[in-house]
Amino acid sequence: MEQQNQLLRRQLSISQNQLIQAWGNEGEDGAEKIGEGTGTGEQGATKCKEKEFGVPKCEVLHIAIVCAGYNSSRSVVTLLKSLLFYRRNPLHFHMIADAKAQVVLHALFSSWNVPHVEVSFYLTDNLAADVSWVPNKHYSGVFGLMKLTLNKALPQTLKKVIVLDTDITVATDIAELWNLFSKFGPKQYIGLVENQSDWYLGKLWKSHRPWPALGRGYNTGVILIRLDIMRQSNWSQKWKLIAERDLTTLFSTQLADQDIINAVIKQHPEIVYNLPCQWNVQLSDNTRSELCYLEVTDLKAIHWNSPKKLKVKNKHVEFFRNLHLTFLEYDGNLLRRELFGCNHSRSVIVPNPLSQLNEEDECYEFRRARQTNYRTHLFFLDNEYDPTPDGFDVTLVATLSMDRLQMVEQLLKHWDGPVSLTLYMSDAEAQQFLSYTQSSEIIASRKNVAYHVVYKEGVIELIHLFRNLVICKVMTTLNTSFKVSIQLFSLQAWIVPAFETQRYRLSFPRSKAELLNRLDMGELFTFRYHVWTKGHAPTNFAKWRTATTPYKVTWEQDFEPYIVVRKDVPEYDTRFVGFGWNKVSHIMELHVMGFDFIVLPNSFIVHMPHAPSLDIAKFRTSPQYKRCVKILKREFVDDLNRKYNSDISLQ
Amino acid sequence: MEQQNQLLRRQLSISQNQLIQAWGNEGEDGAEKIGEGTGTGEQGATKCKEKEFGVPKCEVLHIAIVCAGYNSSRSVVTLLKSLLFYRRNPLHFHMIADAKAQVVLHALFSSWNVPHVEVSFYLTDNLAADVSWVPNKHYSGVFGLMKLTLNKALPQTLKKVIVLDTDITVATDIAELWNLFSKFGPKQYIGLVENQSDWYLGKLWKSHRPWPALGRGYNTGVILIRLDIMRQSNWSQKWKLIAERDLTTLFSTQLADQDIINAVIKQHPEIVYNLPCQWNVQLSDNTRSELCYLEVTDLKAIHWNSPKKLKVKNKHVEFFRNLHLTFLEYDGNLLRRELFGCNHSRSVIVPNPLSQLNEEDECYEFRRARQTNYRTHLFFLDNEYDPTPDGFDVTLVATLSMDRLQMVEQLLKHWDGPVSLTLYMSDAEAQQFLSYTQSSEIIASRKNVAYHVVYKEGVIELIHLFRNLVICKVMTTLNTSFKVSIQLFSLQAWIVPAFETQRYRLSFPRSKAELLNRLDMGELFTFRYHVWTKGHAPTNFAKWRTATTPYKVTWEQDFEPYIVVRKDVPEYDTRFVGFGWNKVSHIMELHVMGFDFIVLPNSFIVHMPHAPSLDIAKFRTSPQYKRCVKILKREFVDDLNRKYNSDISLQ
Repeated sequence: MEQQNQLLRRQLSISQNQLIQAWGNEGEDGAEKIGEGTGTGEQGATKCKEKEFGVPKCEVLHIAIVCAGYNSSRSVVTLLKSLLFYRRNPLHFHMIADAKAQVVLHALFSSWNVPHVEVSFYLTDNLAADVSWVPNKHYSGVFGLMKLTLNKALPQTLKKVIVLDTDITVATDIAELWNLFSKFGPKQYIGLVENQSDWYLGKLWKSHRPWPALGRGYNTGVILIRLDIMRQSNWSQKWKLIAERDLTTLFSTQLADQDIINAVIKQHPEIVYNLPCQWNVQLSDNTRSELCYLEVTDLKAIHWNSPKKLKVKNKHVEFFRNLHLTFLEYDGNLLRRELFGCNHSRSVIVPNPLSQLNEEDECYEFRRARQTNYRTHLFFLDNEYDPTPDGFDVTLVATLSMDRLQMVEQLLKHWDGPVSLTLYMSDAEAQQFLSYTQSSEIIASRKNVAYHVVYKEGVIELIHLFRNLVICKVMTTLNTSFKVSIQLFSLQAWIVPAFETQRYRLSFPRSKAELLNRLDMGELFTFRYHVWTKGHAPTNFAKWRTATTPYKVTWEQDFEPYIVVRKDVPEYDTRFVGFGWNKVSHIMELHVMGFDFIVLPNSFIVHMPHAPSLDIAKFRTSPQYKRCVKILKREFVDDLNRKYNSDISLQ
Repeated sequence: MEQQNQLLRRQLSISQNQLIQAWGNEGEDGAEKIGEGTGTGEQGATKCKEKEFGVPKCEVLHIAIVCAGYNSSRSVVTLLKSLLFYRRNPLHFHMIADAKAQVVLHALFSSWNVPHVEVSFYLTDNLAADVSWVPNKHYSGVFGLMKLTLNKALPQTLKKVIVLDTDITVATDIAELWNLFSKFGPKQYIGLVENQSDWYLGKLWKSHRPWPALGRGYNTGVILIRLDIMRQSNWSQKWKLIAERDLTTLFSTQLADQDIINAVIKQHPEIVYNLPCQWNVQLSDNTRSELCYLEVTDLKAIHWNSPKKLKVKNKHVEFFRNLHLTFLEYDGNLLRRELFGCNHSRSVIVPNPLSQLNEEDECYEFRRARQTNYRTHLFFLDNEYDPTPDGFDVTLVATLSMDRLQMVEQLLKHWDGPVSLTLYMSDAEAQQFLSYTQSSEIIASRKNVAYHVVYKEGVIELIHLFRNLVICKVMTTLNTSFKVSIQLFSLQAWIVPAFETQRYRLSFPRSKAELLNRLDMGELFTFRYHVWTKGHAPTNFAKWRTATTPYKVTWEQDFEPYIVVRKDVPEYDTRFVGFGWNKVSHIMELHVMGFDFIVLPNSFIVHMPHAPSLDIAKFRTSPQYKRCVKILKREFVDDLNRKYNSDISLQ
């Protein structure tokens, strides 16, 4: 076995060298031939040859990716990170996306704001008609066939494109792959790597009947397409005719676009250019991929095309997994690197607002945080939310960081309505969060919870900033009796009275009567009773005890109740990042706008104790922080009075 | 200004091209000359030329680094990570280290266990005599001169070595630098990059008198040394004579070894080979480094040689900082990648114990965790600990993860004796921890606290494992009255009675009387009174109330008190990673060994409430976890009975 293996490696090595030789002779650009070295010299020479044909500096490389649904939108990010990590050219991504993926990826790219990256979107809805008639047994459904439409979907001016599946991780500069376009013969317009499984050889099981293919066939996880020639060759008509013919006997595709592309190639072998196998190392089970890479340097692109993904069996899977994890955990913010040799490119250099800040300013860190464009991944997990027909359902909105994660389950137990949770996390933490949700039955069973990830900024600043954008209140659990259907008018804020326990093991009071009883027993307190009475005093807890109908209360300074409002309410003021005055300023603005504050008589919140966060600890000790919050308060009130022509004065 | 800048860039570009040309002509190995391209082709050709001279596959590259003290041992790790990330050859590190650094780095490398990496240590104590006579004003002190002794320190058989400062980050495969040895002329034995500041030009300030140097002089942050030729040239004698001569007028070195090496080169310019400036891009203020890199691809090695480090002013500092942060935060475990093309090298392949585990085993995750070699960074922060003369001081030992970090300050307030804290963290978290300690006055003021980092394993497994190696107990604060000098005999365990509060804002009881008073008031409880009485029942709290002298108690099953023992006590059994039975099994072993359990009458611990950790949450819900703990318990007791010939039976 081991011997046979070595023999295979040796054979492969010989044939690869022959390939190198062939490339050398085939030179189309008049470059001189490189002398053949011996031993390792040959390796060097290959690279040389590739580099020599090189991609012009700052040339834009075009990459098309089909991406549908929330889960693919999440996994494609690892591919994007690996591409951006190694790239040295401007990139233009062409995202063939469904509506869900487009929302996610549009927000991601625009908040990520990577220099020298452009993105175009093509909605799959507009392309589906061309492929939806093909019966497809593959789990990818209609999206698995989208790659067949690229000649029509992508701009007519675009001549060359690299097409990648979302489950690819690259291990080198993608320009090396782009380089291979220069090797295409005049009739070749599709570059592919041979399939590394025996699928197309047939007979994997008794009734196994694969689509026709040349030998082992080709894998379509990585494709180089010369779109200009493809269009000239009448691609759309060509694949349709062949698919129709084969469907008469095979009834449906099994591996989606790959079956059809292989059937076309079987009939027109002249269109295909064979890519070196290192550009699509396929890690499914029973793969021959091991024959492909003799050395680490050979690995160019890993294709996680097994349904087992990272758990696939492979001799070197630890190596591949490490590469994948590298980018999974990689802080995407670090990829916002300028290709400073390419500033003459089309992209307009937007003046950096940060550069206009004064580092000597006492509030520099706050102002910087406010200006920071936080990379945002909307709908990190799959979710579905159907608004109630009357349009009056109430969404619980909260922000949290990693240290509050264990409260999510508890929250969901108390609130079965829609929830919007924003998670302030690092890339690595987001992966931990993902694992956590996958192991939680409660979380898995809820489809009406949207999780949005706002990525933390770099490690070094982290501790010095205070950037829970909206204060963390997942610790707060709402009683379900709140979900009476309330009709909100636009200038109304309904107040949910807030209580707290200082004990850990709380059984949540099931009724207002039980709550009042335990309040009297000293087990519960009104919220922040011991440290900051002003924040909730206007709620008038004495009146609430006996209230059976909603009652209006009067705003006072420092009032910060939890409220239910229409979603068109003004947003929080971002100058108050972190701990301090964010709720207070928000309530103040509502007051100035003329909102009525109405207390709900039968609803309540109980705040659970939690260890002080590092940010709060910081707040308590830093005089600079306190001075700065004071300055920001003054600025906020001035802006508010100007905007609404009001006359709030700080006490 | 901008125009001038462009002019400079153009000039530089021309001269670099001339350099390339020169290399091409100078070819020593008979390789054919590569045709000159136009524009970007030239860039390609350079790389080609380098690659063509290439380092033989799997050749071991030797890298020497001088590293002294705890802080350097920490910062060198980022350099090591960047080297390992890009390398494709086996590496042999030669660490010239003081005793402190050697302890840290030895433990780090052996727990890191990176394939195809060898490490040798050379104690600076043995080399100091050769350089300590040189007066040095540079903050690096005697260590700053160590590089002068490499010809003697390193093995006589070693012919070539790359020498790097700890504040370097590399941005490409170090083999590219190693390649440049082949360009050395016969008399050249030291390869250096020109200094990028005006220091050696003199007159930076009125009385500024630098050491003699050729032009701007050379920077010694990156050195290529041909040790064989250096030795033949009588290096030791040479530098000493020149240093003695210059010291008669200059009195001391200002930039340590760099001054002396420059003085030697001034007199013997034939020994130096000029490295391309991209191999030592110096980021000090007022640097000319910007002239060095025209494009991203040019950057090979960044030298953070400003005292301002990451805060240095530089037009592209964000780019450099991102590169540095990439490796600062990078999960070092991912660098344990095998260079599978090089398995014929010297390093012996140790059979992986993990491969002997059965993945179907219900306890697979536990057994795997036990076998895992956790990368460990001892003494992550500077510290000094002087044992008391009588040898009877008590060290508080605890383990914690990131979510307990804010308790460290509180702990240190209650315990001013020596502390050993083991932090279970990711690389990124360790950097957050570092920032946190730097902003904490309490932590900064304590020198008798040792912080050891045990790095977490990969993200994906994290949630599925339970690996607080020793249960987190930083939440527990000890009263200071405990520090009576107690003399411990070898078979004694002193028990510190444990209480708990369910409230957050605890003012710590200052005396036993106050504690008892608050116990009666219902503010405090005996530890885990509500959920797990058995764990501490044998302590006999009723007796403790009135005790004024130590008293012996009898061991019972499930007893898990906090204890004070001699440090030669057996270690925890690592099969109980995470939450569950680790303390219980340890106390059981002490019992079987014949330990007496003696309760301290005037000491106590108060446990503070904390949110349940994710691991505990997991424990409470996973039936598999519970089953597995049961199996492990059984195995432990069987092993124990076998080892001590005892007859413990599980109830």
